[in-house]
Amino acid sequence: AGITSLLGSGVYTAAYPLHDNMFYCLPKILYEEWANYSVFYKFQPMGLVRKYFGEKIGLYFAWLGLYTQMLIPASLVGVIVFLYGCATVDDNIPSMEICHPNNNIIMCPLCDQVCGYWKLSTACGTARASHLFDNPATVFFSIFMALWAAMFMEHWKRRQMRLNYEWDLTGFEDEEDHPRAEYEFRVMQKSLSKDQKSKHKMEKLTCRDRLPAYMTNIVMMLLMIGVTFAIVFGVIIYRISTKAALHMSPNPFTRSHVQLTVKTTAAIINLVVILILDEVYGAVARWLTVLEVPKTDKSFEERLIFKTFILKFVNAFSPIIYIAFFRGRLVGRPGSYLYVFESYRMEECAHGGCLMELCIQLSITMLGKQLIQNNLFEIGIPKLKKLIRYIQSKQGAFQEEERQKKLQRYETDHFLEPFAGLTPEYMEMIIQFGFVTLFVASFPLAPLFALLNNIIEIRLDAKKFVTELRRPVAARAKDIGIWYNILRGVAKVAVIINAFVISFTSDFIPRLVYQYMYSPDGSMHGFVNHTLSYFNVSHFQEGKRTTDPGHFGFHVEICSYKDYRHSPWSATPYEISKEFWTVLAVRLAFVIVFQNVVMLMSDIVDWLIPDIPKDISLQIHKEKILLVDLFMKEEQGKNQICESGLSTGEKDNCSRSQSNNSTMTHAHTGLHTNSTKSL
Amino acid sequence: AGITSLLGSGVYTAAYPLHDNMFYCLPKILYEEWANYSVFYKFQPMGLVRKYFGEKIGLYFAWLGLYTQMLIPASLVGVIVFLYGCATVDDNIPSMEICHPNNNIIMCPLCDQVCGYWKLSTACGTARASHLFDNPATVFFSIFMALWAAMFMEHWKRRQMRLNYEWDLTGFEDEEDHPRAEYEFRVMQKSLSKDQKSKHKMEKLTCRDRLPAYMTNIVMMLLMIGVTFAIVFGVIIYRISTKAALHMSPNPFTRSHVQLTVKTTAAIINLVVILILDEVYGAVARWLTVLEVPKTDKSFEERLIFKTFILKFVNAFSPIIYIAFFRGRLVGRPGSYLYVFESYRMEECAHGGCLMELCIQLSITMLGKQLIQNNLFEIGIPKLKKLIRYIQSKQGAFQEEERQKKLQRYETDHFLEPFAGLTPEYMEMIIQFGFVTLFVASFPLAPLFALLNNIIEIRLDAKKFVTELRRPVAARAKDIGIWYNILRGVAKVAVIINAFVISFTSDFIPRLVYQYMYSPDGSMHGFVNHTLSYFNVSHFQEGKRTTDPGHFGFHVEICSYKDYRHSPWSATPYEISKEFWTVLAVRLAFVIVFQNVVMLMSDIVDWLIPDIPKDISLQIHKEKILLVDLFMKEEQGKNQICESGLSTGEKDNCSRSQSNNSTMTHAHTGLHTNSTKSL
Repeated sequence: AGITSLLGSGVYTAAYPLHDNMFYCLPKILYEEWANYSVFYKFQPMGLVRKYFGEKIGLYFAWLGLYTQMLIPASLVGVIVFLYGCATVDDNIPSMEICHPNNNIIMCPLCDQVCGYWKLSTACGTARASHLFDNPATVFFSIFMALWAAMFMEHWKRRQMRLNYEWDLTGFEDEEDHPRAEYEFRVMQKSLSKDQKSKHKMEKLTCRDRLPAYMTNIVMMLLMIGVTFAIVFGVIIYRISTKAALHMSPNPFTRSHVQLTVKTTAAIINLVVILILDEVYGAVARWLTVLEVPKTDKSFEERLIFKTFILKFVNAFSPIIYIAFFRGRLVGRPGSYLYVFESYRMEECAHGGCLMELCIQLSITMLGKQLIQNNLFEIGIPKLKKLIRYIQSKQGAFQEEERQKKLQRYETDHFLEPFAGLTPEYMEMIIQFGFVTLFVASFPLAPLFALLNNIIEIRLDAKKFVTELRRPVAARAKDIGIWYNILRGVAKVAVIINAFVISFTSDFIPRLVYQYMYSPDGSMHGFVNHTLSYFNVSHFQEGKRTTDPGHFGFHVEICSYKDYRHSPWSATPYEISKEFWTVLAVRLAFVIVFQNVVMLMSDIVDWLIPDIPKDISLQIHKEKILLVDLFMKEEQGKNQICESGLSTGEKDNCSRSQSNNSTMTHAHTGLHTNSTKSL
Repeated sequence: AGITSLLGSGVYTAAYPLHDNMFYCLPKILYEEWANYSVFYKFQPMGLVRKYFGEKIGLYFAWLGLYTQMLIPASLVGVIVFLYGCATVDDNIPSMEICHPNNNIIMCPLCDQVCGYWKLSTACGTARASHLFDNPATVFFSIFMALWAAMFMEHWKRRQMRLNYEWDLTGFEDEEDHPRAEYEFRVMQKSLSKDQKSKHKMEKLTCRDRLPAYMTNIVMMLLMIGVTFAIVFGVIIYRISTKAALHMSPNPFTRSHVQLTVKTTAAIINLVVILILDEVYGAVARWLTVLEVPKTDKSFEERLIFKTFILKFVNAFSPIIYIAFFRGRLVGRPGSYLYVFESYRMEECAHGGCLMELCIQLSITMLGKQLIQNNLFEIGIPKLKKLIRYIQSKQGAFQEEERQKKLQRYETDHFLEPFAGLTPEYMEMIIQFGFVTLFVASFPLAPLFALLNNIIEIRLDAKKFVTELRRPVAARAKDIGIWYNILRGVAKVAVIINAFVISFTSDFIPRLVYQYMYSPDGSMHGFVNHTLSYFNVSHFQEGKRTTDPGHFGFHVEICSYKDYRHSPWSATPYEISKEFWTVLAVRLAFVIVFQNVVMLMSDIVDWLIPDIPKDISLQIHKEKILLVDLFMKEEQGKNQICESGLSTGEKDNCSRSQSNNSTMTHAHTGLHTNSTKSL
């Protein structure tokens, strides 16, 4: 423990255990059999990893391994669902109707003045593509993934139990945490400032002492979340304004690729912002936790993780949540659009629902995050830092080339990156788990992408631990701690989010309602027409009317828009119609049914799979019996010694030890009392 | 264990531990300080109960005690909510409108032909009464009760932990269950029948062996549940037909009290049926479990409890669920009512919602069950049986009056009822817990009734255990087993049921919707009118029209009924209107919001309250340190003995005992390894 203070006062710059020499057995095997891309199909040598790096890191790799393994069936089913979408795309009546050459539906302009009327048949491509992700199989898939998450939790519990048994941790309990130096310093400061009064009570920080820090925490967290939302909003404004600007461009090529340009640039901006904010938020969370002065290291870590998780989660998912649930819902209606800042009209989704856009945003964010953040940053930055550290030390001692040749182990290790804890590794994986489960209804390929990433990730992390990082101090751990709770939380939230994605973002429910309530012949024919409402173009406000007359060969008098509203010639024109409320009611009913059915099924999975594998529980039981047996024999043996002639002093000793023994037995969690009875 | 077989073969008729003599200390104290109604306000002497009856029964009484204790705040808040309803009944605009003397709304007849039109103002009393249970405070109260249930679970975990510590059960694990005799018999039979082939594999019953039993189980369970539903349906038919019959009665007194008579008799019939079926279902569940031939006693008990619980739960709650969610919803509309068996029109609720009827049904079932089943049966039947047994033994030896005077302890105890397990006691309480949590939104006084019942129940059960039952064999237990899971399940179901009761059974949502969407001035004025639809009486089918002309002084042309439908003069007469779908959507949205908010809050409660009380975890930690200390000292002491001169043989012994010791230490759950490090 003294090393920490020496490190703190700058006598030492770093303290770390040394890597074993490469010629020794263990690191060599690890390097060849584990930290190697060519063995990606093999199980990890968990025992060796644990031996070299300690239980805590061992558990991380075991968890990562199980997660990757579990992703295999998930991505398989995901691919099948996607293929089902591909196979049935030509049988999909709504998209057939949109693509039909006789389809002459004229849609209202997508922006004021500069945009013109457009034919629905131009949305044919989007409509066909959206069927890939918006078909009944996705409903099945999101139920499957919810159960998959429950199954994963259960399997992890079992795997953890097995590792606990194999690594002999079953009785291990977290060592008592010593207060952190910062905490003790604060307590000392406090007791010094109030010197005279009741020193005994000053032994800990009260709520009142922490109040300022807590307040700062809450305010900063809200501020950061606010910043995230503001940026999402900023990107929306960017999209709206750029779209309007590009539509006015004289260049016809620019005009024809407006949608594509805007969407792609916006998604990339979002991605870049997410990547930058991720780093900022990591630093902010650490700073806030230091402010809080938690008592123990464990509490420090948990608070830090909790804060980092919330910030990064909001950061990663708020643009996606906007697209899934808000985009295209707050647009108003032709003639009475909703404007932000009084001049920007809120954006609509292209025909075919926002599901397609959600899908694009999801895949860009997920792939971008994985490729750039996880792989580039994780490989590139340690390498870069190593290089810098190497160059720095070279500048200091550029002439001693001789000594460079045979560097001591502690010197070569010093060039390596210091170990910064497992938090970033776990965080990355949990955010990925979020992508895999939260919006899986809109993107069934997510598990596949995650699987491909993780197969590389395991070996990448392994390589990093073996060759790029200073060897971490081995730490014991029985479980993955707070991460398990976070996983559970994500899995729970996933159920409700998927329910909402299916019922609100996709067209699943409107299709069902049409088929069973409104369709004259029970088929999907006429669905497209049913979802559209009419608008009399003479009702456009002045200055909002399009300046583009259109090239339809006739004067446009009525345009269509996607909403359930009364027609212009009804008694209450443009009012929300009964169909809207019917569909809304069915959507909400679906959410309730879906959520409760999936939760019930998860509970059943939870209940069917025992937490402890049967062979392990048998083993533990057997060992307990063996232990009791040994205990009894030992007791007998001792009695024999005591009974044989000994000097009085030693006899005393003996009986003392016996009484100790019996105290222990008693205190010893009643095991002995119990076993005596059963024997 | 031999006693069981002797009992089975009829050599002994009963085996039971004897009660201690009343003059001894323990039973006397128990009798005076525990099994006594006059000490109802005191905490139970848990230590003594445990000492006399064992941990299992001790835990039951501890649980019952905590439950009763927790009911105090719940019933307090419930009473306040009820009083709030009473206080605001005169400010309630809808009921004021109904009761207003100028209210001339004519309602459609409640049954065909014999019932006449009626004035809405005659429903004034019901409308006022229903406000008592249908006001915004009930929404608050049901959220409160959901959190209360979560809090109760958490507190029980803590109490259990504390008792485990105090009763020295922390390390106790369930003893290995031996297979039941019935199971071994079946296995033997099986291996005899297939004598030659591979005896080794015949050691257990496979799924195939159990298949017939499982099938019988499933079929019988479904049948029993079907019987319950059939009886509920039967009572509905009874209600409908009796109502029609009584309306035709020439006696005007009978006619004017139709509603009251029918409601009361139906509720009593329901109650009687529930009481009878409860007994039947208990027997059926036991028979089914015997058929299953579970392997161990524990598994037998769990299966039995599970089955009994499901049957009794369905039995107790299906009439209530019918009233809450189905009654008055499947009535059709005037001119096109829904008929069962083509002649019975489905019943409607009186104006003011079905909440009032639900409330009446709930209170009758709950009070009836508690008074009759719990108290009368529990006191009466053991007394009766005791009397019978006493008389029987007297007949056999009527002359030996002398010996009767100084009966041996085992003889007096033989007159007592044998102990039948804790299942009925728990079951009763869980069903009560169901009444307290499941429909609390409609009956805020339920916790109060439960509290009053339980204050008696504790002492009643105590008395029964001390004086009426043969002393049960003391059994150890660490927790209340499957009951905890059942409690959790009930608490989870309660959230969703309360959400549905508030949004569908009560008028809370329609009122909200009217106030914020339809009301011209944002007040509740006009709400009653808004919920009614009009019917043109000339549209009644032939033969269904009422024969009663009514005494309104004018000819009735239009009557009103409670539904959201288009008026007779609209383009689509009597079609479901937009308001219906709007209200439905809001109702469903409320269910989603309510369920998720309450679940989140429960999770937060779960997370905020630690499972182990702080003082106990500190104590356990201290003891562990002490234990390690003793262990180390003992080891040192032993080394000393070994080092002092001993004969070679004894030295061997010594080293063996040492090695045993170290094996043990190692096997001993890693504690020692760990502690050595920390010391």
